[in-house]
Amino acid sequence: MSGTPQFSAENAQGRFHRQANRFTSVITADGSSGYPVEPGRYQLYVSLACPWAHRSLIVRRLLGLEAVVGVTVVDPIRDDRGWRFTLNPEGRDPVSGAQFLGELYRDSDPEYQGRYTVPMIWDRSSGRVVTNDFPAITIMFETEFRRYHRPGAPDLYPAELRGDIDAINALVYHTVNNGVYKAGFATSQAAYEDAFDALFTTFDALEDRLARRRFLIGDRLTEADVRLFTTLVRFDAVYYTHFKCNLRRLIDYPNLWAYARDLYQRPGFGDTTDFVHIKRHYFQTHDQINPNRLVPKGPYIDWTEPADRSHLPERA
Amino acid sequence: MSGTPQFSAENAQGRFHRQANRFTSVITADGSSGYPVEPGRYQLYVSLACPWAHRSLIVRRLLGLEAVVGVTVVDPIRDDRGWRFTLNPEGRDPVSGAQFLGELYRDSDPEYQGRYTVPMIWDRSSGRVVTNDFPAITIMFETEFRRYHRPGAPDLYPAELRGDIDAINALVYHTVNNGVYKAGFATSQAAYEDAFDALFTTFDALEDRLARRRFLIGDRLTEADVRLFTTLVRFDAVYYTHFKCNLRRLIDYPNLWAYARDLYQRPGFGDTTDFVHIKRHYFQTHDQINPNRLVPKGPYIDWTEPADRSHLPERA
Repeated sequence: MSGTPQFSAENAQGRFHRQANRFTSVITADGSSGYPVEPGRYQLYVSLACPWAHRSLIVRRLLGLEAVVGVTVVDPIRDDRGWRFTLNPEGRDPVSGAQFLGELYRDSDPEYQGRYTVPMIWDRSSGRVVTNDFPAITIMFETEFRRYHRPGAPDLYPAELRGDIDAINALVYHTVNNGVYKAGFATSQAAYEDAFDALFTTFDALEDRLARRRFLIGDRLTEADVRLFTTLVRFDAVYYTHFKCNLRRLIDYPNLWAYARDLYQRPGFGDTTDFVHIKRHYFQTHDQINPNRLVPKGPYIDWTEPADRSHLPERA
Repeated sequence: MSGTPQFSAENAQGRFHRQANRFTSVITADGSSGYPVEPGRYQLYVSLACPWAHRSLIVRRLLGLEAVVGVTVVDPIRDDRGWRFTLNPEGRDPVSGAQFLGELYRDSDPEYQGRYTVPMIWDRSSGRVVTNDFPAITIMFETEFRRYHRPGAPDLYPAELRGDIDAINALVYHTVNNGVYKAGFATSQAAYEDAFDALFTTFDALEDRLARRRFLIGDRLTEADVRLFTTLVRFDAVYYTHFKCNLRRLIDYPNLWAYARDLYQRPGFGDTTDFVHIKRHYFQTHDQINPNRLVPKGPYIDWTEPADRSHLPERA
């Protein structure tokens, strides 16, 4: 996804608006949706650069779904035809044979006029796009794919905490996950400053919250942490400079920075983070804000520094 | 000055080259150059945004030359006719009556094809540009204007230290003062990375040097400190993001950052620094690297934090 504004509506105030997702089918444990959970049937398409796709990779790994849902990684640089499978032999997705992600969208719906976004899940049986509805993909993995979770997998979306998780997700989405895009893709100073202020107001609140809690929702790692993490891990490397989100860096917030490292150092987080893809994508794709396409060599950030969060309780 | 690449030659490797200065006359104490030192005769034209012009403002103030050399400040935003006097009543320089700095250049030399740069010194008597040779202007104030220095003014360019000062000035010019421009205006990744590496190598050396010395040249404030300061004070606010000089921020270097604050908090440094002009100029002038002209709202940097450098000796 990674919202490129030339494909998105901007309103008269210079604000960035993210397109709604078009494909919203669901894979269900009971098969009632027409897409039953079946190992090996569905392929997940991601860019390692994209924070929305990154969520699905983290959750897939936390839940041990690697053998159940395959993954194809696109080239971090889109051309004018969109995301490409140039990282694969002969430049083709080994599952579908496509050269461009857009082919899978158009084969599913020849009328589709929207963007060809990642993450996207494709059904090998029908050859159709199931969903590119990124907030639903991780929830689907957590709830409908439960039968295939690894032994001891965490419950990232426990029924009794969904109200709390959904509430913090809404705040984090609007002011942080999408907030950085609102700042970076604003075309008026006022729209940029609104997004900037909302972002750092939330950072202050999170900094305070994480002084006393190991995770966003107390002592349990949840979907909410996954969603916040994918923006935090890109923050100093990209958003601080590229999107002008520069009141402070992540590493200037002691609790938020330690929390981000605590996540990064767990399987599923750091090992799904690719800073080369991340930096190349953002700095070489958005000509409207970085026309020379130079990729900053910095910053120097040590993600392996100990997190020192073990005094805060974590439920096993 | 603030070197805009559309006016500068770039070579085939995408490297930024700064134009040589064209007007290089000197004002002399003995009048031998045809431009004798005379209070009130010469006008200094500066942009508060420009690090090269900032040097001359700092030195003028340190030496107490405010009543001897007048100053006109240009608008931080150039239009396609160059620096403008729009901050003055009726948009005219009160000394020359010009609306644009370029008028003074063209009246001096109708053949002149170069850029209309600041700092520049203009002679009210002859109506001619004396010099836009920025490295020479501060030295001239320090040496030729000595008769008009305030009582107790520092000797910023003492004869016995000139070798040391010139040596460090050369390093700082190529890798820091102009180094940030080489990084920011590079049009190839290799040229950018060369400038980036040279810059941060020098920062490491300066960090080490300033652990044991109050100033660059031991215990005496000199011209070398003035030249380094004007880049340091702009570093986190502009160069880190705008010119992609983002290995580390100034404030991540304990000694360099304390040294910069120690200078900032002295008369002549902080009181000649205008962050509004600085940020507006860079972010709203270089369309080739910031086409949306948004001005970052950050970073939050506290220049009034105590410098704690008094354990390092300073000669009175």
